[in-house]
Amino acid sequence: MAPQKTRVTKPDGRQLWFYAWDRPLPQVEADSRAHKLESEGLELRWHPLLEEWVIVAPERQGRTFLPPARFCPLCPTRDAKHPTEVPARDYEIAVFENRFPSLRRDAPAPAKAKAPYASTRALGAAEVTLYTSQHNATLAELPREHIACLVDVWADRYRELAARKEIAYVLVFENRGKEIGVTLTHPHGQIYAFPFVPPQAKRELDAAARYQRERGTCLHCDIVSAETRDGARVVAQNEGFAAFVPYYARFPYEVHIVSKRHRPSLLELTRAERANLALVLKTLLQKYDRLWKRPLPYIMVMHQRPTDGRRYPGCHFHIEFTPPHRSPDKLKYLAGCETGADTYIIDAKAEETARRLRAVAPRT
Amino acid sequence: MAPQKTRVTKPDGRQLWFYAWDRPLPQVEADSRAHKLESEGLELRWHPLLEEWVIVAPERQGRTFLPPARFCPLCPTRDAKHPTEVPARDYEIAVFENRFPSLRRDAPAPAKAKAPYASTRALGAAEVTLYTSQHNATLAELPREHIACLVDVWADRYRELAARKEIAYVLVFENRGKEIGVTLTHPHGQIYAFPFVPPQAKRELDAAARYQRERGTCLHCDIVSAETRDGARVVAQNEGFAAFVPYYARFPYEVHIVSKRHRPSLLELTRAERANLALVLKTLLQKYDRLWKRPLPYIMVMHQRPTDGRRYPGCHFHIEFTPPHRSPDKLKYLAGCETGADTYIIDAKAEETARRLRAVAPRT
Repeated sequence: MAPQKTRVTKPDGRQLWFYAWDRPLPQVEADSRAHKLESEGLELRWHPLLEEWVIVAPERQGRTFLPPARFCPLCPTRDAKHPTEVPARDYEIAVFENRFPSLRRDAPAPAKAKAPYASTRALGAAEVTLYTSQHNATLAELPREHIACLVDVWADRYRELAARKEIAYVLVFENRGKEIGVTLTHPHGQIYAFPFVPPQAKRELDAAARYQRERGTCLHCDIVSAETRDGARVVAQNEGFAAFVPYYARFPYEVHIVSKRHRPSLLELTRAERANLALVLKTLLQKYDRLWKRPLPYIMVMHQRPTDGRRYPGCHFHIEFTPPHRSPDKLKYLAGCETGADTYIIDAKAEETARRLRAVAPRT
Repeated sequence: MAPQKTRVTKPDGRQLWFYAWDRPLPQVEADSRAHKLESEGLELRWHPLLEEWVIVAPERQGRTFLPPARFCPLCPTRDAKHPTEVPARDYEIAVFENRFPSLRRDAPAPAKAKAPYASTRALGAAEVTLYTSQHNATLAELPREHIACLVDVWADRYRELAARKEIAYVLVFENRGKEIGVTLTHPHGQIYAFPFVPPQAKRELDAAARYQRERGTCLHCDIVSAETRDGARVVAQNEGFAAFVPYYARFPYEVHIVSKRHRPSLLELTRAERANLALVLKTLLQKYDRLWKRPLPYIMVMHQRPTDGRRYPGCHFHIEFTPPHRSPDKLKYLAGCETGADTYIIDAKAEETARRLRAVAPRT
């Protein structure tokens, strides 16, 4: 069922979208939080050694850092004296433009850089996706119907952002846990819309295009069929999707969720496939959270077709989860070899961590 | 002055080198630590999405983790009942093959991977460089003459490893601080010798070669001259080297130390240049440690010419320091945007952090 949707412009000019399925759209309260949105110094600087853009966002220095639950800016505004980012008494799912954006619609023109340097505007979008109004919920515990609604919201945001001509790539992601540096605990994810295809996405797309050209098949289709045929690294699967610790995992509990059919983005998924994606997401997250009996920190990143209008043969929708832990009390650090050489060392075998995740029974 | 050098083979087959300048080479004690060196499961797995190798090293799971100082395996063996990795009562600088290697001379042949996957032997070297026998010393506090000796040791190891035909790249690096995941606090660095040119080095080398081809000059020579001419981001410099927070920094306190003359590796540095490198290193490290009045964690990575015998136009020796902190009590985390897109967001301006580092007076 398609959601109802309404857009609100906040007093500082930022936009917020409410999505509603079961309940009427929320009554919007007057938003008294008229922040002045700063963008002093926001720019993209070119890294000539690595040939990639670096986002310089000085205003993010002052961003909200682990506030107590009663001052959570992502909860609904339950008391007019404590207005939050969400000017309503409740909501099902909401999305709003980040108060401390790394990329924005109205990014300023930067000071011109002298050769051999270059700078440009940090055009794009930085949005926050509120998964639920319940401050202490986790994605794993939300009903699968609610997760399916979230999939619809991700697809809707992808579609809307893709239509903006300055946007080349939409990155849907989630950082979870203080180990990842998360500054707000309310269940939420983020969406960055870039004016360029980010380096890692570009490398993956180039590799997939090369594979397709050389072998005539899709790399990801071949991987998902090899993984499900082998089975040793599969964590969960259904008709639409497989979740597995890939043979080439760079993190011990890394899991990729890959569409079994060749779909470049969320937009090409059928209704049944979206429901299957929600289900496999819920299963994986339950396994993650029950593995060591506490919410497992992770980074979740969706890989979809760039939105710059070019052709990307071999582009195949998938989600990559990279939890930073290698054991309940030890993190896998990105040190000299990873940060300085981009070569990852992993001390766990994918077959073994997959076995452990498979053994965790999800709550049904 | 060239050091005296002696090589010891440990009972488990690993090699250790003592380097001596002022004192005679140490008397070697009988080494009773006859570990069985395991290499079960050690292999390189090909990451087909990113087209890079991942090092799988399961034996590293059991590596020594933050032992108390009296059990430090990097101290000299002062008491025969507590033998350490170093079978001598003292040493000036020593290097030995890691007990938990990610890459090794005698790496086993891995199980053959089924398509679309691939695996190969983790051939190469993983060495530990002991900067000093003093457990509580820091590199910044060591006399600059001692740091110059360390530069000679790095050069000697680079030369020896470069001569091995299976080795394509020698990575000299240091991880410092528990925030980086360092498991031993004794002052030490590491050297990895890879059977391939690691992805990040390759990207830097490709970019430098492209720049050289298109403009006829060396990218790094142009950068070091632009930075010293501008001066706003320079932290320290002398005749041979400049240390600066680069315009394109990805970490707030990132500093690059770049040779002012075009030198591809440590081996081409003159004696005077090596002394100047030691001096600028000492100055930078003192500034780092005095900035917030405590040893600043960092990752240090040297970028040198690959050792695979190919030509690398535009290859220029430099050292990249990336401290993970963005303020005394806050880390810059590598989250979704960095890990999942390889796009870095920095909330500090390079000009501002350079100004702060410049303002810290080094102890003379």
